[in-house]
Amino acid sequence: MTSFNSERPSEFALIAELFAPLAKSAPGALGLTDDAALIAPPPGYELVITTDTLVEGVHFLADDPAASIAKKALRVNLSDLAAKGAEAAGYLLALSLPRTVDMNWLRAFAKGLSEDQRLFDVLLHGGDTTSTPGPISITITAFGFVPQGMMIRRGGAKPGNLVFVSGTIGDAGAGLEAIKTKTEGHAYLKERYGEPSPRMKLGRALRGMASAALDVSDGLLADLAHIAEISGVRIEIDASRIPLSQELRALWGDDCVVRAASSGDDYEIAFTVPDNRQGLVKEIAKGRASTSITEIGRVVAGQGVVLLVENAREIPVLRAGYTHF
Amino acid sequence: MTSFNSERPSEFALIAELFAPLAKSAPGALGLTDDAALIAPPPGYELVITTDTLVEGVHFLADDPAASIAKKALRVNLSDLAAKGAEAAGYLLALSLPRTVDMNWLRAFAKGLSEDQRLFDVLLHGGDTTSTPGPISITITAFGFVPQGMMIRRGGAKPGNLVFVSGTIGDAGAGLEAIKTKTEGHAYLKERYGEPSPRMKLGRALRGMASAALDVSDGLLADLAHIAEISGVRIEIDASRIPLSQELRALWGDDCVVRAASSGDDYEIAFTVPDNRQGLVKEIAKGRASTSITEIGRVVAGQGVVLLVENAREIPVLRAGYTHF
Repeated sequence: MTSFNSERPSEFALIAELFAPLAKSAPGALGLTDDAALIAPPPGYELVITTDTLVEGVHFLADDPAASIAKKALRVNLSDLAAKGAEAAGYLLALSLPRTVDMNWLRAFAKGLSEDQRLFDVLLHGGDTTSTPGPISITITAFGFVPQGMMIRRGGAKPGNLVFVSGTIGDAGAGLEAIKTKTEGHAYLKERYGEPSPRMKLGRALRGMASAALDVSDGLLADLAHIAEISGVRIEIDASRIPLSQELRALWGDDCVVRAASSGDDYEIAFTVPDNRQGLVKEIAKGRASTSITEIGRVVAGQGVVLLVENAREIPVLRAGYTHF
Repeated sequence: MTSFNSERPSEFALIAELFAPLAKSAPGALGLTDDAALIAPPPGYELVITTDTLVEGVHFLADDPAASIAKKALRVNLSDLAAKGAEAAGYLLALSLPRTVDMNWLRAFAKGLSEDQRLFDVLLHGGDTTSTPGPISITITAFGFVPQGMMIRRGGAKPGNLVFVSGTIGDAGAGLEAIKTKTEGHAYLKERYGEPSPRMKLGRALRGMASAALDVSDGLLADLAHIAEISGVRIEIDASRIPLSQELRALWGDDCVVRAASSGDDYEIAFTVPDNRQGLVKEIAKGRASTSITEIGRVVAGQGVVLLVENAREIPVLRAGYTHF
């Protein structure tokens, strides 16, 4: 159901009170009082939908701020929509809470969602709250719209295409490491891990422009391997062109590119474009999308992903699917 | 994401192998290989969407058959769609698994889904698999279609309307009790709890016919209170007309109506219809929907739900929201 009928009756009113304002402006959410939500894609548009779960102790830590947890749960889903060229519209929230969760935690969680709703122009459309004897678990199902036939898929990369990636790579992985090892400082990297920035504007701008795209969550090379596999092509990446932040170099050193390209949670967009759009895509990214992008390689006939290092020695990285280095 | 990229790489291929066949016939599922699924409602239709989580130890028991768990997780969602008059089309599956779950369990789980996909004509469209240090948790987000403007809401009941419910009430609650107390026998009641029957045909037949509807999950009276509250009306139920199964009477006795009407998990549809459609709705239920329905009361001006017992003594049951008896 999408009404927030908690199984713990005493909390029904409180939970409804916390979440109802998040759905107020969404007519299809029916005030979170019905069994289901109603979604009407605008004429000529299709619906793009994705779901992701975050589990306490796996995807976030018990003492992470509740607002950050909420934002991360929403953003990892929005990032999937961005990579498909979709305009995010709304989401459903399935929340499993231990009996020990207090209302202050829930208030901060709802506040985090509220802030991100304004930032990304999305609205809560419904959900479900359940008890759990285990860790907190958050499943968000986000949806958005694309003009008919315009969703950017993983399978459209063609030999001759160029490979781009947004932002910088490896920051989140380094941030997670700094958190786990209780290393002081490195606030930028930690924030890149805790509150990723889904590239919504870039995704929309890539419609009709990118031949294939996905969001980088498993690690740049592992994710490019998905494009290579599903498109039936080979992807060559120039190690020296992978964009690394100053903050990452400060922590991991200048020689960290393989590590950066194989660590996860970047939530950047990796994409391919026909080579005659090289200038146009750079112009659009800089202008309409105000997002930095970097050309990092090319699509050729064959299969798998290779990382080319400066001395032109080939490092065979992945053939298909996920492989550790 | 909707591709089944397990975080446990060694299982990637196995999980993909198990779930990919469930999405094979859904073009929008993109073979479970993309970041998101694509849904295009038929022209003139809107999308109805709902989400529900089942947690091990809360909504099912660790030693319940995996196929039954899968079916229940899907059916509680389908039941929400049915009550809204929607034709079910597909679902996303977010599955959190402890590291101890074995592949035989997963195989049986996928088989349960596969059987229900055929039974209810729905297809897997995507999902997410994560590890959890806690209990198994299953969040399904199901979607379906209704002709524009035809979704049956909770808020449309009007004074003068008649109140109906499908099937029989209380069976699931009694089944759960029999399971918990390790009472032998009572297979029918236990099955009513373990594998509810969403009333898909009835829901579709009630489009343009019912003024309000919902699926009975919290308990008949508690759920009718939602209709009363959101419609701004009072609902009077005749205790003697609430349909009870022989099997329920055998376990709980002939005098169990209040208990039956306040136990949960029935997944029947409770609905209201204008009184001039009394004959027509019975005809349609019997014919097109082949589902038994029973007239159990009426909508009047006022608020709350009352249960009228034979000697006409009023039992004030609920005013608003959920209240225990």
